[in-house]
Amino acid sequence: MEKVLRFVEEHLDEALQGLRELCRFPTVSAEGRAIEETAQYLAYRLEDLGFQASIVPKPGEGNPVVWAYQEGSSPRTLLFYNHYDVQPVDPLQEWATDPFDVVVRAGRIYGRGVSDNKGNIVARLLAIRAWREVEGGLPCGVKFCIEGDEEIGSPYMEEWVHSHRDLLEADACLWEGGGVSWDGRPYLALGVKGLLYVELSVRTLARDAHSSWGTVLPNAAWRLVWALASLKAPDERVLIPGFYDDVRPPTAEEEAAVASLPPEEEDTLKAYGCQRFLGDLKGHQVWRRHIFEPTATIDGLLSGYVGPGPKTVLPAQALAKMDFRLVPDQDPKDVLENLKRHLAAQGFTDVEVTALAQEHPARTPIDHPFVALVRQILREVYGKEPAMVPSMAGTGPLYPFVKGLALPVADIGIGYPDSRIHAPNENVRIEDFLQGAKAVARLMGALGSY
Amino acid sequence: MEKVLRFVEEHLDEALQGLRELCRFPTVSAEGRAIEETAQYLAYRLEDLGFQASIVPKPGEGNPVVWAYQEGSSPRTLLFYNHYDVQPVDPLQEWATDPFDVVVRAGRIYGRGVSDNKGNIVARLLAIRAWREVEGGLPCGVKFCIEGDEEIGSPYMEEWVHSHRDLLEADACLWEGGGVSWDGRPYLALGVKGLLYVELSVRTLARDAHSSWGTVLPNAAWRLVWALASLKAPDERVLIPGFYDDVRPPTAEEEAAVASLPPEEEDTLKAYGCQRFLGDLKGHQVWRRHIFEPTATIDGLLSGYVGPGPKTVLPAQALAKMDFRLVPDQDPKDVLENLKRHLAAQGFTDVEVTALAQEHPARTPIDHPFVALVRQILREVYGKEPAMVPSMAGTGPLYPFVKGLALPVADIGIGYPDSRIHAPNENVRIEDFLQGAKAVARLMGALGSY
Repeated sequence: MEKVLRFVEEHLDEALQGLRELCRFPTVSAEGRAIEETAQYLAYRLEDLGFQASIVPKPGEGNPVVWAYQEGSSPRTLLFYNHYDVQPVDPLQEWATDPFDVVVRAGRIYGRGVSDNKGNIVARLLAIRAWREVEGGLPCGVKFCIEGDEEIGSPYMEEWVHSHRDLLEADACLWEGGGVSWDGRPYLALGVKGLLYVELSVRTLARDAHSSWGTVLPNAAWRLVWALASLKAPDERVLIPGFYDDVRPPTAEEEAAVASLPPEEEDTLKAYGCQRFLGDLKGHQVWRRHIFEPTATIDGLLSGYVGPGPKTVLPAQALAKMDFRLVPDQDPKDVLENLKRHLAAQGFTDVEVTALAQEHPARTPIDHPFVALVRQILREVYGKEPAMVPSMAGTGPLYPFVKGLALPVADIGIGYPDSRIHAPNENVRIEDFLQGAKAVARLMGALGSY
Repeated sequence: MEKVLRFVEEHLDEALQGLRELCRFPTVSAEGRAIEETAQYLAYRLEDLGFQASIVPKPGEGNPVVWAYQEGSSPRTLLFYNHYDVQPVDPLQEWATDPFDVVVRAGRIYGRGVSDNKGNIVARLLAIRAWREVEGGLPCGVKFCIEGDEEIGSPYMEEWVHSHRDLLEADACLWEGGGVSWDGRPYLALGVKGLLYVELSVRTLARDAHSSWGTVLPNAAWRLVWALASLKAPDERVLIPGFYDDVRPPTAEEEAAVASLPPEEEDTLKAYGCQRFLGDLKGHQVWRRHIFEPTATIDGLLSGYVGPGPKTVLPAQALAKMDFRLVPDQDPKDVLENLKRHLAAQGFTDVEVTALAQEHPARTPIDHPFVALVRQILREVYGKEPAMVPSMAGTGPLYPFVKGLALPVADIGIGYPDSRIHAPNENVRIEDFLQGAKAVARLMGALGSY
C-alpha cells in the first residue's frame, strides 16, 4: 500500500498534465459545448488505463454517459459517479487566468472544473494508475459512470440508471467529490436533498394597461405577490398544507454528526456579506437547519416595467421561479400536487404552475458498514476525525443509486472551502488533490480485502 | 358666430396640413427627440397667428415651455394647457403607417400625437384663426402654456407654474384634451388624480448564493414579496395606516355625475381581454371606483434569474416599482411617509424606498360657473348632454393651476374611445376634430361676452 501511495506522490506532475488536457475542453453543458469531444477523450483515457469503456446515450436531449469497467483481484466492485460537464465561466473578467487553461500558482491549481468535477476524475484515475503500475492490477473491480448533464440538473439520469442497472452493479459508490474543512477535517457526505423547481405564471389581461386602471383591472404582479406570500410566512415556515408531513426526523446519530461539524458559520456570513443567519441561528443550529430542513426559495421574479424611471404600467403578466429543496421522505410529485391544491384553495386559480425539474432526496444511513469503512480510511489519510454530513444541502441524482440500485453512496473529494465552484477562479490545493487521490487508492485496497 | 364655425369647417384641409407639419417632428420626450425644433416651430406658428410667443426654460433638465399671449376684445382671458411632446412609437411594427407621417383614411387621421396632444393644439389654433379671419380679432384674451415633458410625468411643472404666475394670469383654463364617448356624448373632465411613484429595493447579500442556502441566508425576493403583501390585501384594500384618512368623499353632485356616465364597461373589458372587473364591479360602480378611489399598483418586479429553465439561485437583490394614484385631499408626501413608517413598523427595515415622482391630485368643483359655461357650449355643439367626469383616473400637473393660480380647469378635446393614445395607430375622427375646434371657438365667444 505504501508503494501505491508513493507512486501517487511521485506522479503528481503527470496527473496535472492530464488535468490540463481534460480542462482544455470547454465542456459547458448549459451552452452545449464540447460534449462529444470530452466524452471521447475520457473514454480514450479510461481505455488507456485498462478499462472497457463506452459512450452510452441518454434518452431525449441528454448528453451521453461515459461508462467504464475494469476487473479487480477481488469480487468487490466500487462504482464512481462523476460528471464531465462544468458550469459556465461568466463573469469571465473576474478570472485571473484563462478558465480553460489550467495553471498552478502558490500550491493551487486554477481552472474551470479543477474541483467540480474534472479534478476529482483525474485524482481517481491517478489512484487507479498507481495500483496498476505498482501492483499490476486493481485490488477491486472499478466502474465509472460519468455523466454530462450534472450542471443542468441531470435530466434523464434517473431513467438512465433504471435502464442500465446491469452496467452499474457494484458493492458501493463514491459520489462526485467533496473536500476538507478550513481546519483540515475531511468531509464525508452521505446524501442530497431533493428538488422541485417550478415556474408560477399569471396572466390577467391580454395586454398591459395604463396603471390608472389599477382601480378596477386585475394586476398580474399583485396576484403573483399574494400567491407567493401564501406559500411561506416571514418566519420561514412553509404554509403549504402537508409540506412537512413526510419529513423524516433525523436519527440520533445524524443529529450527533451535525452537532460536531466544523464551525464555518462565520466564514459563510463573511463570504456573503451578511450580518446574521435567518432566525438569528448560531453554531451548529445553522448546520442543523441547513442539512435537515426543506426550503421554499424564490429564484426569480419578473413583471411589468423594470427599467429606469417612473413608467406607469399595470402588468398583464408576472412570472416567478421557485425551488423547493426536499428532505427524506418528501416526494417532489407530492409537493407539486400540494402546491397546486393550496393555490387553488387560496383562490389563486389564475396562477399557472409548471414543473421544470424534480429530483428525490436520498441518504445513505450513517451506520452503514461502507460508511464506517470510508470513515476509517479518511482518518488514516488525513489524520483527523472526518466531518460526517448526513446530507448535502444541494441536489444530485443520488436517488436512483441509493434506492434503485440499493448502493451505499459516500461523497469524498479534493475540494476545500475556498474552491469557488461555479464561480471565477475555481481552484484546488495540490495537497488536497494528493490526499484525495490517496484516500481513493486506500479505499480501493480496503474494499478489495473487505 | 355662425361665420366663425363655417370658417372652421371650410379650412379643415389647411388645419390638417398644419397637423401634418407638427406631427412630422418626432417629439418623443422619453427619448429627448426633436424638443427644440418642435418648440421653435410652435412659437413660429403662434406668432404667425398674432401671438406674442416665447420659449421659456424649465428648471433642471426640463424641456422648455412654449408660452404665448394674444389680447382679445374683452378683459377675459382663456389659458390653454397643452403639451408638444408625444409617447414613444414602439412597437413600430404594429403601426399600419409611419407614425410621424400623418395620413387620412376613411374619415380618420392617423399619426403619433394626432390625439395626444398635437391634434388638440391644432384644433385650438384653427378656432383662433377662424375668429381672427372672420372677426378681425379674438373675443377674449388667449394664453398658451405648452409643455414638453408631459409624457414623462411633467417634472418641474409645479415649480415652473409657481415662478411664472404673471405669465399665466387668466380667468379659466382648458386642459390638454378629452373626447367623446362611443355614443357621441362629449366628456367634460374636471380633475386628475395625484401620483406617488416609488421604487422598493432590497439587498440581503453581497452576491447571489446557490439556492440551497435558502435554509439560512436571507432571500431578497422573499423579503420584497412579504413587504409588498403587507401593503395591500387581495381584497384590494390598502393596508398602510392613514392611507385613506385624507380621502375627501365625493359630493352628491360628483356622485350623480358618475352615475350618469356612458356605459363603457363592456368595451373596457373587451379591450383588455378580461372577464370581469376587480370585486366583480358592474355598471357605474366601475366608474365610481375608477374615478374616486386611490390605488396601490405594482408596476414592475425584478429579482434573481428569469431566463429559461431551472437555474437555482438565491437572489441577493430585488426591485419593485409601484405607483399610488391619489385622490383629494391625499398628499404624496404624506403617503410616502406613511409607507416608510408602515414598512419599518412591519419589520421591513431592509426595504429601501425611493420616490421617483410625486404629484398632487386636483379637481375643479363641479358647480363652478365656468364648468356650467363649458357644459352649455358642449350641449350646443354636440347636441347631447355632456358626460361630467369629476376627475380623470390619470395624472397631470393640474394642481398648480387649480391651487396655485386658483383657476377653474376643464378638459375637453377631439378624441374618442378608440383613439389609441400611447399605442400604435393613434387616431382621431375628422368629425371629432371639427367639433372640438368648434367647441373651442364657441367657448372663446361665450367667455368674451361673459
